[in-house]
Amino acid sequence: MWNVAEELGALLIFAEHRYYGESLPFGNKSFDDARYLNYLTSEQALADFAVLVRHLKKTVPGAQDTPAIAIGGSYGGMLAAWFRMKYPHVVVGALAASAPIWQFADLVPCSTFYNIVTQDFRKSGNCCADSIRNSWAAIDRLASTAEGTRWMSCTFRLCSPLKTAQDVANFKGWLSETWVNLAMVDYPYQANFLQPLPAWPIQVVCKFLQRPKLPDKALLKNVFQAVNVYYNYSGNTSCFSLSQTATQSLGMQGWYYQACTEMVMPMCADGVNDMFEPQQWDFQSYSDDCYKAWGVRPRPSWIPTSYGGRNISSHSNILFSNGGLDPWSGGGVTRNITNSLVAVVIPEGAHHLDLRSNSPYDPNSVLQARLLEVHFMKLWMKKDEEYRRRK
Amino acid sequence: MWNVAEELGALLIFAEHRYYGESLPFGNKSFDDARYLNYLTSEQALADFAVLVRHLKKTVPGAQDTPAIAIGGSYGGMLAAWFRMKYPHVVVGALAASAPIWQFADLVPCSTFYNIVTQDFRKSGNCCADSIRNSWAAIDRLASTAEGTRWMSCTFRLCSPLKTAQDVANFKGWLSETWVNLAMVDYPYQANFLQPLPAWPIQVVCKFLQRPKLPDKALLKNVFQAVNVYYNYSGNTSCFSLSQTATQSLGMQGWYYQACTEMVMPMCADGVNDMFEPQQWDFQSYSDDCYKAWGVRPRPSWIPTSYGGRNISSHSNILFSNGGLDPWSGGGVTRNITNSLVAVVIPEGAHHLDLRSNSPYDPNSVLQARLLEVHFMKLWMKKDEEYRRRK
Repeated sequence: MWNVAEELGALLIFAEHRYYGESLPFGNKSFDDARYLNYLTSEQALADFAVLVRHLKKTVPGAQDTPAIAIGGSYGGMLAAWFRMKYPHVVVGALAASAPIWQFADLVPCSTFYNIVTQDFRKSGNCCADSIRNSWAAIDRLASTAEGTRWMSCTFRLCSPLKTAQDVANFKGWLSETWVNLAMVDYPYQANFLQPLPAWPIQVVCKFLQRPKLPDKALLKNVFQAVNVYYNYSGNTSCFSLSQTATQSLGMQGWYYQACTEMVMPMCADGVNDMFEPQQWDFQSYSDDCYKAWGVRPRPSWIPTSYGGRNISSHSNILFSNGGLDPWSGGGVTRNITNSLVAVVIPEGAHHLDLRSNSPYDPNSVLQARLLEVHFMKLWMKKDEEYRRRK
Repeated sequence: MWNVAEELGALLIFAEHRYYGESLPFGNKSFDDARYLNYLTSEQALADFAVLVRHLKKTVPGAQDTPAIAIGGSYGGMLAAWFRMKYPHVVVGALAASAPIWQFADLVPCSTFYNIVTQDFRKSGNCCADSIRNSWAAIDRLASTAEGTRWMSCTFRLCSPLKTAQDVANFKGWLSETWVNLAMVDYPYQANFLQPLPAWPIQVVCKFLQRPKLPDKALLKNVFQAVNVYYNYSGNTSCFSLSQTATQSLGMQGWYYQACTEMVMPMCADGVNDMFEPQQWDFQSYSDDCYKAWGVRPRPSWIPTSYGGRNISSHSNILFSNGGLDPWSGGGVTRNITNSLVAVVIPEGAHHLDLRSNSPYDPNSVLQARLLEVHFMKLWMKKDEEYRRRK
């Protein structure tokens, strides 16, 4: 974005989504209960952006008649796409990077996400995915004795030792999330998005996971080495906390609430086509957990109802970019819908690689993607200027 | 709509807007305070319609893959247009009849509305508008004495006699609203929209208003005869209430709240180019009145921010029909914006005449408008079918 902004002579505005970062509408109370959380919705965020852009156009000298473009990655990419859909008078177009706008309801199979993670691990080392698949049973066997449970807490340097069956389930959830996050950030160079990591981190992780048939403790020692790459690349981590899988700065509290209202993304695994423990998509239990946590029940059909699901062809000027390594690409738009709803696929890319600064390690596909993105941005601006001139 | 539905083999659904009619989300408490009224917004109404159409498509046999079209008049016409703008995946197009989507902020001059009313009266009889313009000073002169005030209360058969200066102001407001309403319902045949009325009611009214320079009492007796056409065409009204200018069924309470939040429509008169008492658009006093009535302050820029103001060219498949006699046409779309945002003007039409059933008294222009409307509806459905087939 910085490179492109310079090329286009553009002003870059980062709008902080309400309830994230410092934008807390009710200060410290913002997450206290549903009464305060009521204003945390994607619709409200889009309305905020519309008011903000309008305000900036009025108050920034020279901005009044200049075109604006929405850019975002991940949830921000969904917002960018939705912003162009709902407020086409405010932005001439949108770049929606790694935006899984179809990871809702039954728009894609719930297995897609974990399948892509598994493919990434399969591609990155011999038997890597098999090692991970075998680790779940190994954990269960060790968890069946007090000694085994103590050994795992110690080997994995857990800040709080495992005690209950729920702790063990959380431990497996934490490992799953680690593999997922590695797939998201499998960048071709050292980076620091969710965690500080080496280049192509899955390849580094998979060096430790080449022998799936080792005895349980030996296998899990290797799993620990792999996990250690993700959580301790800097070498400064003294113990690992199961409640943390990414940097705090993402503001997960707001996201968890949104996941319990609008942002319901069905996922499932079968342990055969993927390397995860089999788990069905169980909406009822998901809903019950939400009710326990926030006192609200999710509305799983609202996002497709509001934003159109697969039926979005009457919109225009949206670029959907997706990385082939990114599990979120499964819920993304990876084929052109119309001439102006265009899919950009970056086979060697992970989660919104295209939004990162240029790097000598960038694969060719992302360089091409960025060129295409700039081409479309210029096209949108040109058409907007022509339209203004005709008026 | 009934005629067209039969021709197209369509199902007609009338969706009741929340907070109107029987759709009261909090029952009798719905209008009690801002906490309950919070859910009365146009956005919420559109969301309701989206959920409703989705539900009907799922549950009505054979409806799943049939196209839906939004149709509405007046505020309902705005909703129809906005529904297509915000939910183009739910309806293939919209007929927005007499929808003043530009009667907001500074999108049209605030004088437009009363100017059109005045033109209607000018066209309908010699000196008719002049008589009305002169009536305001006549009222003021009579109101300066107790006898004159009593005389007016009696002559105009008011249910509650005028007492205070505020009563006199309300009386003048009631007369103004009567002239405005007559302009809205100036239909070519007997009708019963806001009130039961004869054909071309302004012509009937203006028969009493041919001599603007009569002495005050004589002039106001004529004004009473004119008003009597509007309020007492049926002959059953024993006294006139200043708080009522239209049938109760419109649900004005909800509208007054909406006018105090989103639906802020600036209007003004100068008494020179129009026949009304001069009144500036005074947002501050408007806002203060809203705060007194509901404890809320209006957001005058929100509608243009949300729905695009004049910058709506990237939408498609909306027909904006307007009657030349209708004061609301001043805030309507009366020129084509694109090939698929089409203006239909009915010079001899009042407020959404085109939505009424066919009548032998219909002017040619409304028959042509209806033909064009059906032509576009068929076009939208055909394109939708082609698109479905290609997929």
